[in-house]
Amino acid sequence: MNAKSSRPTPSRRAPAFSRLDADLVDDMVAANRTLARLGVLDAFGHVSVRDPRDPRRYLISRSIAPESVTAADILVLDLDSQTVDAKDDGVLLYRERFIHGEIYKARPDVNAVVHSHSPTVVPFTVTRATLRPLLHNAGFLGLGTPLFEIRKCVGDGTDLMILTPDLGKDLAKKLGKDAAVVLMRGHGDSVVGPSLPNAVFRAYYTEINARQQLAAITIGGPINFMTRAEAMTSNDAMLRASARPWALWRKQALAQR
Amino acid sequence: MNAKSSRPTPSRRAPAFSRLDADLVDDMVAANRTLARLGVLDAFGHVSVRDPRDPRRYLISRSIAPESVTAADILVLDLDSQTVDAKDDGVLLYRERFIHGEIYKARPDVNAVVHSHSPTVVPFTVTRATLRPLLHNAGFLGLGTPLFEIRKCVGDGTDLMILTPDLGKDLAKKLGKDAAVVLMRGHGDSVVGPSLPNAVFRAYYTEINARQQLAAITIGGPINFMTRAEAMTSNDAMLRASARPWALWRKQALAQR
Amino acid sequence: MNAKSSRPTPSRRAPAFSRLDADLVDDMVAANRTLARLGVLDAFGHVSVRDPRDPRRYLISRSIAPESVTAADILVLDLDSQTVDAKDDGVLLYRERFIHGEIYKARPDVNAVVHSHSPTVVPFTVTRATLRPLLHNAGFLGLGTPLFEIRKCVGDGTDLMILTPDLGKDLAKKLGKDAAVVLMRGHGDSVVGPSLPNAVFRAYYTEINARQQLAAITIGGPINFMTRAEAMTSNDAMLRASARPWALWRKQALAQR
Amino acid sequence: MNAKSSRPTPSRRAPAFSRLDADLVDDMVAANRTLARLGVLDAFGHVSVRDPRDPRRYLISRSIAPESVTAADILVLDLDSQTVDAKDDGVLLYRERFIHGEIYKARPDVNAVVHSHSPTVVPFTVTRATLRPLLHNAGFLGLGTPLFEIRKCVGDGTDLMILTPDLGKDLAKKLGKDAAVVLMRGHGDSVVGPSLPNAVFRAYYTEINARQQLAAITIGGPINFMTRAEAMTSNDAMLRASARPWALWRKQALAQR
Repeated sequence: MNAKSSRPTPSRRAPAFSRLDADLVDDMVAANRTLARLGVLDAFGHVSVRDPRDPRRYLISRSIAPESVTAADILVLDLDSQTVDAKDDGVLLYRERFIHGEIYKARPDVNAVVHSHSPTVVPFTVTRATLRPLLHNAGFLGLGTPLFEIRKCVGDGTDLMILTPDLGKDLAKKLGKDAAVVLMRGHGDSVVGPSLPNAVFRAYYTEINARQQLAAITIGGPINFMTRAEAMTSNDAMLRASARPWALWRKQALAQR
Repeated sequence: MNAKSSRPTPSRRAPAFSRLDADLVDDMVAANRTLARLGVLDAFGHVSVRDPRDPRRYLISRSIAPESVTAADILVLDLDSQTVDAKDDGVLLYRERFIHGEIYKARPDVNAVVHSHSPTVVPFTVTRATLRPLLHNAGFLGLGTPLFEIRKCVGDGTDLMILTPDLGKDLAKKLGKDAAVVLMRGHGDSVVGPSLPNAVFRAYYTEINARQQLAAITIGGPINFMTRAEAMTSNDAMLRASARPWALWRKQALAQR
Repeated sequence: MNAKSSRPTPSRRAPAFSRLDADLVDDMVAANRTLARLGVLDAFGHVSVRDPRDPRRYLISRSIAPESVTAADILVLDLDSQTVDAKDDGVLLYRERFIHGEIYKARPDVNAVVHSHSPTVVPFTVTRATLRPLLHNAGFLGLGTPLFEIRKCVGDGTDLMILTPDLGKDLAKKLGKDAAVVLMRGHGDSVVGPSLPNAVFRAYYTEINARQQLAAITIGGPINFMTRAEAMTSNDAMLRASARPWALWRKQALAQR
Repeated sequence: MNAKSSRPTPSRRAPAFSRLDADLVDDMVAANRTLARLGVLDAFGHVSVRDPRDPRRYLISRSIAPESVTAADILVLDLDSQTVDAKDDGVLLYRERFIHGEIYKARPDVNAVVHSHSPTVVPFTVTRATLRPLLHNAGFLGLGTPLFEIRKCVGDGTDLMILTPDLGKDLAKKLGKDAAVVLMRGHGDSVVGPSLPNAVFRAYYTEINARQQLAAITIGGPINFMTRAEAMTSNDAMLRASARPWALWRKQALAQR
């Protein structure tokens, strides 16, 4: 897979300093707070959205806890995960932002990324069980749940974090062309979607499916997972249905202000 | 089983545009919010009540997240799950509303229906364990917990949802004449009752019994479930006792306004 | 065991209509709300305290959900669980109040009783595992955790509830002279203590110990429970230490008003 | 190991009555409330910080529930865990405060201590499973998780509590020179760090790692724990990264006032 060759080639170039769309910035604030409230993000993790003005850029918060993100914290980075606005010089950036930039490079279909330490997903990253869709909302898991093992990329002794562009590229490669979720061993996951509401939806239902799969394992015996065909049909349906929870979550999150 | 032959034949016909009873509408708002707060409903699922003015109709919210339902969102549908009031033309309806309409057709004894993705019930829909009553509040589970497997009705490749009147009829048939709960594989359950407070009560204690059965399975060994006779006696007692939690839940839910 | 022979014989007789001590009534309100907030009580269950003015009486709420109890709801019952004040004629009483009255008759050392459907205790009432103390706060479990099986008393077909004085006597007999907790199959438990703060403390830590024992069972292998000697020493220590959480819980509960 | 020989020998002596730094006192209030809100501390447990003015002293609350700690409750004790200020004569002190004083004597590198009944850690103290790091935030567990078994120190029949200086010394000895966490059988743990934010961070992630290890055990099969090298690298990274959650937690905790 050549990440560079799949890099989007936008037809227009947005001015570097054009004002961010207020609704999109509110979406970002809402996504951060919602995923914190739902227990997917704790004091770590981050959310990004591809800049609709320029697909070679993305929006992400400066390095603070997701629950405390406000509109003033939203920055624009290029796909090398560097700031594009002089006013952001010296702002502290998430050290793992390369997750976002490299996935946007490799996956033109992806417009939003959530990286989290999703608490019930982590146990599935350190065992041999495969996270598979059993709840119809989580059909997107049928697109695959590849496991990124950092030891296979750079050997033993890392802190498991994606601190360089090369590690970001390796992670994007493991995610592949189809999957919506890449598991990260001992760390969490990165979830992608064609829109921010859908990526938030998928990050939440990845955690819920993991909880329900854990309970099904506890009950014992074979688990009646969704078939591939069911998963694909459900994924299509949920691309549309993500709008309903998003309307609620966004309203609740912004009402906190 | 012939669903049509059991269709209620009301003796009077309420005027289509008569004002909804304000207390009943408040009940509906309270039921939606309560089940969301108790973790039975998340951003999906829906609650309905048969219209006391006309048993060939039922009340349900327009298609929004249960937690955000207000009095203005409550609609009247006929048992074919179509709107009956011209003012509701063009309002977005729950796509799975046929669950409600077809159950009301098949079960004249049922006056309220809750459809949810009850989180600890789902694992029991994808394993071979039978959900059975062990907590005395959940004696109604002794009326049966049939499992609806959509693959057996319409084959592989669906999104598991009840999107047509025919699927609604199939689900109502699986529920049968006696059960209070029908499990839906990889999806959740639909819970019915003779009144809205009782259906809310049953939806909640189905989830609680599932959690406790999961814990009992974890402990191991044979489980001392309620006998059939105990379950029936408890069910009768709880038909009356549902009023106590309902008084609390309704007050709490409406105090949020 | 003859419950009647152990009935306390108070030396003084309080006037039937003397005003209840306001602090004690606040204690009762706080105990109800606290146990609801801590998840020990849900919309069912009840708390009582022996009347310090007359040990042949006890205080308990009228039949409402514990979370909604206010000072005006607190009643005085005699040990036959009947109202003693003409003003309470016609007030709806908890149907299972005999749990309280009969335990006070049988156990002069007991001054407070909590009956709950403690959610993680229930699974231990339907399996063969014995609930035993592993957390030092729960040393009182070393006094025994007898299991009341209603089928052995009155046969099959009940709703598992303690609806008569005789069933209350049977339950008190199963509790015995020493135990702080009697488990009730498919129902929950009744927890007793020499004071209301201590009974609340014990009801809470019974639930916590059950959760931790469930986790220890999940981990597997032998469990290093407290020894009898450790349990007794800890029980003594916690009779005193109950005051610290109680100070916090009472303040929080009464601040809600 | 000779605890006394490693006692810090400060070069200056702060006046006994100098005013406490207001920010540090706020830190203490925030640490207590945060750990209570995160479910690490319940109504018991305590947090301390070494006095930056005099390493032979430490700050800790008087004996109240952590959730209710305010600035006025913070006291200064010497390393023998006695008050140093005449104004504190007669104030009720935590009975287990020797945990703190003796650890500060034995570990000059330690500047903060959290003692808790961390709910999912307790089951790991009564089973043979070893608590090991699987989540990258919990790399510090790779420094060891020794288990303090009080029966081996003073025999059977205690209430498991650290009520004397000698027991505090025994606990500090079991913690050893390197570990960040010492497990206490049937009781909880004591977690140490070079700073208060880091000790709070470690206490929280010890609980989170325990939950995730419990889930991994439920899933079954071998668990891919962090290697020693990964744990050490992560620990280093998290010494710095503790600042991000702390900024959020402190702000939230102090906003409650």
